[in-house]
Amino acid sequence: MKMIHIILLFFYLLSYTSHATYTNDFCVANFMFPKTPSGYPCKSETNVTADDFASSTLVVGDSKNIFNIGFTTAFVKEIPGLNGLGISAARLDFEINGIVAMHTHPDSSELIIVAQGQITAGFITPTKVYEKNLKVGDVFVFPTGLLHYQLNTGPKKAIVYAVYGSSNPSIHLLVDLLFRNKLPTPIIQKTTLLDPSQIMKLKAQLGGSG
Amino acid sequence: MKMIHIILLFFYLLSYTSHATYTNDFCVANFMFPKTPSGYPCKSETNVTADDFASSTLVVGDSKNIFNIGFTTAFVKEIPGLNGLGISAARLDFEINGIVAMHTHPDSSELIIVAQGQITAGFITPTKVYEKNLKVGDVFVFPTGLLHYQLNTGPKKAIVYAVYGSSNPSIHLLVDLLFRNKLPTPIIQKTTLLDPSQIMKLKAQLGGSG
Amino acid sequence: MKMIHIILLFFYLLSYTSHATYTNDFCVANFMFPKTPSGYPCKSETNVTADDFASSTLVVGDSKNIFNIGFTTAFVKEIPGLNGLGISAARLDFEINGIVAMHTHPDSSELIIVAQGQITAGFITPTKVYEKNLKVGDVFVFPTGLLHYQLNTGPKKAIVYAVYGSSNPSIHLLVDLLFRNKLPTPIIQKTTLLDPSQIMKLKAQLGGSG
Amino acid sequence: MKMIHIILLFFYLLSYTSHATYTNDFCVANFMFPKTPSGYPCKSETNVTADDFASSTLVVGDSKNIFNIGFTTAFVKEIPGLNGLGISAARLDFEINGIVAMHTHPDSSELIIVAQGQITAGFITPTKVYEKNLKVGDVFVFPTGLLHYQLNTGPKKAIVYAVYGSSNPSIHLLVDLLFRNKLPTPIIQKTTLLDPSQIMKLKAQLGGSG
Amino acid sequence: MKMIHIILLFFYLLSYTSHATYTNDFCVANFMFPKTPSGYPCKSETNVTADDFASSTLVVGDSKNIFNIGFTTAFVKEIPGLNGLGISAARLDFEINGIVAMHTHPDSSELIIVAQGQITAGFITPTKVYEKNLKVGDVFVFPTGLLHYQLNTGPKKAIVYAVYGSSNPSIHLLVDLLFRNKLPTPIIQKTTLLDPSQIMKLKAQLGGSG
Amino acid sequence: MKMIHIILLFFYLLSYTSHATYTNDFCVANFMFPKTPSGYPCKSETNVTADDFASSTLVVGDSKNIFNIGFTTAFVKEIPGLNGLGISAARLDFEINGIVAMHTHPDSSELIIVAQGQITAGFITPTKVYEKNLKVGDVFVFPTGLLHYQLNTGPKKAIVYAVYGSSNPSIHLLVDLLFRNKLPTPIIQKTTLLDPSQIMKLKAQLGGSG
Repeated sequence: MKMIHIILLFFYLLSYTSHATYTNDFCVANFMFPKTPSGYPCKSETNVTADDFASSTLVVGDSKNIFNIGFTTAFVKEIPGLNGLGISAARLDFEINGIVAMHTHPDSSELIIVAQGQITAGFITPTKVYEKNLKVGDVFVFPTGLLHYQLNTGPKKAIVYAVYGSSNPSIHLLVDLLFRNKLPTPIIQKTTLLDPSQIMKLKAQLGGSG
Repeated sequence: MKMIHIILLFFYLLSYTSHATYTNDFCVANFMFPKTPSGYPCKSETNVTADDFASSTLVVGDSKNIFNIGFTTAFVKEIPGLNGLGISAARLDFEINGIVAMHTHPDSSELIIVAQGQITAGFITPTKVYEKNLKVGDVFVFPTGLLHYQLNTGPKKAIVYAVYGSSNPSIHLLVDLLFRNKLPTPIIQKTTLLDPSQIMKLKAQLGGSG
Repeated sequence: MKMIHIILLFFYLLSYTSHATYTNDFCVANFMFPKTPSGYPCKSETNVTADDFASSTLVVGDSKNIFNIGFTTAFVKEIPGLNGLGISAARLDFEINGIVAMHTHPDSSELIIVAQGQITAGFITPTKVYEKNLKVGDVFVFPTGLLHYQLNTGPKKAIVYAVYGSSNPSIHLLVDLLFRNKLPTPIIQKTTLLDPSQIMKLKAQLGGSG
Repeated sequence: MKMIHIILLFFYLLSYTSHATYTNDFCVANFMFPKTPSGYPCKSETNVTADDFASSTLVVGDSKNIFNIGFTTAFVKEIPGLNGLGISAARLDFEINGIVAMHTHPDSSELIIVAQGQITAGFITPTKVYEKNLKVGDVFVFPTGLLHYQLNTGPKKAIVYAVYGSSNPSIHLLVDLLFRNKLPTPIIQKTTLLDPSQIMKLKAQLGGSG
Repeated sequence: MKMIHIILLFFYLLSYTSHATYTNDFCVANFMFPKTPSGYPCKSETNVTADDFASSTLVVGDSKNIFNIGFTTAFVKEIPGLNGLGISAARLDFEINGIVAMHTHPDSSELIIVAQGQITAGFITPTKVYEKNLKVGDVFVFPTGLLHYQLNTGPKKAIVYAVYGSSNPSIHLLVDLLFRNKLPTPIIQKTTLLDPSQIMKLKAQLGGSG
Repeated sequence: MKMIHIILLFFYLLSYTSHATYTNDFCVANFMFPKTPSGYPCKSETNVTADDFASSTLVVGDSKNIFNIGFTTAFVKEIPGLNGLGISAARLDFEINGIVAMHTHPDSSELIIVAQGQITAGFITPTKVYEKNLKVGDVFVFPTGLLHYQLNTGPKKAIVYAVYGSSNPSIHLLVDLLFRNKLPTPIIQKTTLLDPSQIMKLKAQLGGSG
């Protein structure tokens, strides 16, 4: 936080209205204070406007990446009014053969609605795979914390709206967890049984070290 | 529950696998037992398939009604795998001038994504109105329990995807609460200050008695 | 927040005792910091006294209003020790023909105990009315988020104690939501089917504009 | 459960309406099925009436007991509609010198409203006592799980309404926990430091053995 | 459920005592009814004994497996009294070089206490590794839903007690999720970037197909 | 809070990184701000290290006390990463005849694992005692808020690991609640039926006044 933020914080405190006028209708995120296990502290209600509950950020995302997938979000950062409500949304733009790589949301369920194209979506447990081919208008749900994926299995681009049971869902891509941070190769080898050559090849591709 | 359901219940019990094989990954709704404050009891995991997590029910809804609005749902009834996950979805098809009438969800927040057209959405508190004009791709959120509405304010049909922070959201339209059940006219008059003539006119239109 | 509050905040920080002495027995509201989705931050335990858990505010409320109803509260503002406990209370004084107008609590259930007189209490769903005549000592409960009302249906004044499943319940009177803020008449008309003349009459009576 | 209950259970199942008509507005307790950690399963909505949300059980309780205290309840057993709502009520009638003995509610907070007379109420932590003298209309709150007590300290009878943050609060009187069950005297002695003679005296008085 | 279970269910119902005697002190799991999102229905309190809250199952586990790790549990199946309490325990016996393979608990946090030996424990986020070397008596915590692992990095056997914030934690080993069920090789390849030869090698080793 | 803390607070604010980089993976306690009903505010993720999730504080505790019991903790103060996770641990060292005196945790369940020796553990309800003799490796659970105790009933020292369903459990020893604070003797006498002589004897022994 820079000096300008400190100054803003004091202006915030100066303008902070008393609790007596603060109702319980919503709790728009106030990013000037650190968040808590239940979410961000609330902005003073007198400063809240309809814009705090809206976003135009679900645009076509940049899909020039290894998985040919665009991803834009309407999370608490984009819609501060989501704070405390336990819901948020995202948009996925699949190029032909675009993929949502294997990942988990440690803190939330996810429901998807296919807005365009055809995709295949699935989640996995240690003993079983739950997978469906989905067309426009179809809905699928991934239970909290389970590893899941989506693939564009149609002949054209696809668009999917995803919604989450958290206002700020974490996204843990398996390739990032294993091959993009500094997790040492011997640790990966021992705990996943992957071959060192495979690990090092993917670390090189994805930017991991260690 | 008809006799056939009793018989099915017994076949269910006959096929019920022991708890020892039941994990905590999800709890697909078992509609043969009454629900609880936390949701429906769980189906045996051995009977669960990917179909329990999917639905094709978000089709164009019938909009031949007083509000020119089609409404189809993907709630726990349509996707039993939503049980316990606290999320669900619906589709709204607005004819020109179509309206989502003033209503609350007593048990859930709602987030909308405009899939086609232009709408105006708002929610109200005793002292303020939070309203926005929304175009394709825009997102808006209605906090839990607050009275809210949507109007097609564009020149063409509109489509909106709505998602809820409940797997089985209640929908309480104000016109139904006041004018479609048997709430007596004098009670309505005294508690809302509406004129008896207005109340009786709308009861006649909407089918209320009392 | 005025300069005096800033100064007080610093004295607060100066006197703030370390977390090491802070137990989990309660969390008395500290109104100098903004609240969070789980309630207000906690006052330092060393500054907490029995007064933080008590209130004498449930006195006879002023009933010179359109509904002939007095209303006084023992919410978190009056009893900071309620913070985080999810409970609070209020007192209703009904003049003859006094009315608790149609309203919801978006965030809490309500239980009432009739302390004096006779009242009629009810809540409504889209298809049914749940209403009871209550006498001294009777208890009735309004489930979370549902529209409900009370009327003095006895020959004398009545007194009711109301308790809530929230330390700071929101109160949304339908007449306030529709006719006392700036919600535009055409929006009300389209989303509730009320006639414009009815809407304008009540806006004039209640102070609404738009 | 007697045979008559089995037969009733089958009639229940015969009358059980499908989930499709079951909304989320409330969950009235169905005592024919075992309860769950979130409360009792729900009665079919078609069998629910206003009576499920009301009770006339908060009458003058029998105070011919060692503490000169009458106690009557409006818990989920008396008001099945409280199920899942996390709230309930009780009435305390204090004779002169009547006492609510030292106790905890392991699962709920408690808020009291003095309806008649003067009492002293308090709760204790390992290092401090939080106690107040209360007169008619005063409110006091006991945080969840803390040991607390009330005494009639006025010259006349007193009446208190108590409400709880649970639809079925447990009540653990210290004298019952220590001296009315079969907890062996040596265990009590070692873990509370009370003298054996004191323990045996109170066991004799209260009916404990062991 | 076999016929014998049906018969037992009826004997259960015959012995089921009325709700009136059922308190809220605990909810010992009743495995004859299907579980709910909040846990299993409760056993009748009259049938509950101290044994429902105890277990001797945390013995040395069989470590003749690919990871040289023994694992025994005290979950709700072994201690029905854990139902609804959100806590449970396990014991890990590490042979020299024993490994707790990379895994998540989608529904719970985990805290470990090293009872013997020296281990290295860590969890990973997309950008960072949080890893510690632990000796006897050391404690480490893995936040909910995050991928984590443990390795015996000492010269001798090691023993670890693990406790969970769930009475029935799910355990999702990455090697099981990817290589032991029927998840098709092309899906794994596309969503994890692993080479088909690597995938097929591990499927052969671990028993996966598809 | 001393001036040095104010200065540190400002350096904290200066270094506070924007919310945009803050994920939802964990919420390490930031003790510079007051806690909330859901726990402490979160430290900036850039300052979090593996040390925030570890502790070496479960050492042999000092047992030179009236109960011959050593007690060391790994609560949120010792492991700030526990914040928001609802779990923590402690170590109990029993001398021969060592005792964990009768107490409650108003806010959490407890699970114990016997690491060495033989103990007897029990909890009590108003009507029943649930007690077990436990040997090395045995597990026992005390439900939330119930009065419970442990005794070394073996011939040697004993060690027990205790874990809690709270990151900061309160510990309310009955002897402290009754005899170590300033609760007046007449109040104790009236609300527990203990004799004044007994009360005064124990107050003298334990340091209570009043």
